[in-house]
Amino acid sequence: MRRVIDLAVANARSGRGGPFAALVVRDGAIISEGTNLVTSSNDPTAHAEIVAIRRACEALDSFQLDGCELFTSCEPCPMCLGAIYWARPTRIYYAATREEAAKAGFDDEFIYNELDLTPETRHLPMIRLLASDAGAPFEVWNRFDGRVEY
Amino acid sequence: MRRVIDLAVANARSGRGGPFAALVVRDGAIISEGTNLVTSSNDPTAHAEIVAIRRACEALDSFQLDGCELFTSCEPCPMCLGAIYWARPTRIYYAATREEAAKAGFDDEFIYNELDLTPETRHLPMIRLLASDAGAPFEVWNRFDGRVEY
Repeated sequence: MRRVIDLAVANARSGRGGPFAALVVRDGAIISEGTNLVTSSNDPTAHAEIVAIRRACEALDSFQLDGCELFTSCEPCPMCLGAIYWARPTRIYYAATREEAAKAGFDDEFIYNELDLTPETRHLPMIRLLASDAGAPFEVWNRFDGRVEY
Repeated sequence: MRRVIDLAVANARSGRGGPFAALVVRDGAIISEGTNLVTSSNDPTAHAEIVAIRRACEALDSFQLDGCELFTSCEPCPMCLGAIYWARPTRIYYAATREEAAKAGFDDEFIYNELDLTPETRHLPMIRLLASDAGAPFEVWNRFDGRVEY
């Protein structure tokens, strides 16, 4: 965790993105490191955890982080926590909390609150269309013998 | 939305990933399209919305989707909804619901429920370390004149 905080400090000074870093470890070895690259890469999804997960999956040639642990300098935002659940490591270690991130000007806490609302009541308008045809992709998926579940 | 559902159906049949698609529109023109590529690209973050957002930001040379609308074949999972909030389009249109996704075997609903829990009570263990040093990256960030907020 000391290394993750040092990486986050260096990233904050670098101009590459926000003050966040993460790394993925397996069997005591670092598989990947990531820092926030949102503004330098024009990618709003390039948070430290997402960058570290994508690099670790590339290194391991797998879409799952079996047996891995993730260290992050700050409690993950909902996007990153969702990504972590999809990647399925065994454990998360974190240092700062979402409240500390909010105090530093980041939207994590706002987004957590928004996710708790129903689609109709969020600040970002969500409108349902073509509900009658929405099941078609799932029907094809369930009939497709070659599907790889994730 | 008709096009998004057709893309999702085609993706489900293709073996590239799950039965999902999304696209980003601005001023009536399609800026980007994305489909789920998790299993074919070994990237657990390659959901349709994330792929479409990353491609749209690349096309627009921006980390924000100002004035854009996002169409998705299914209500976004927490990872994708978080990504959408960070990208800040003006509106989301969706077809299937998270309950329909759960019925088809996807974890969206489970992850929504997990996000509502405190870090200590989630199924995925979350452990806080080095809390006393957690503020250092934010302090450097707030003192850094060259910071680009996002």
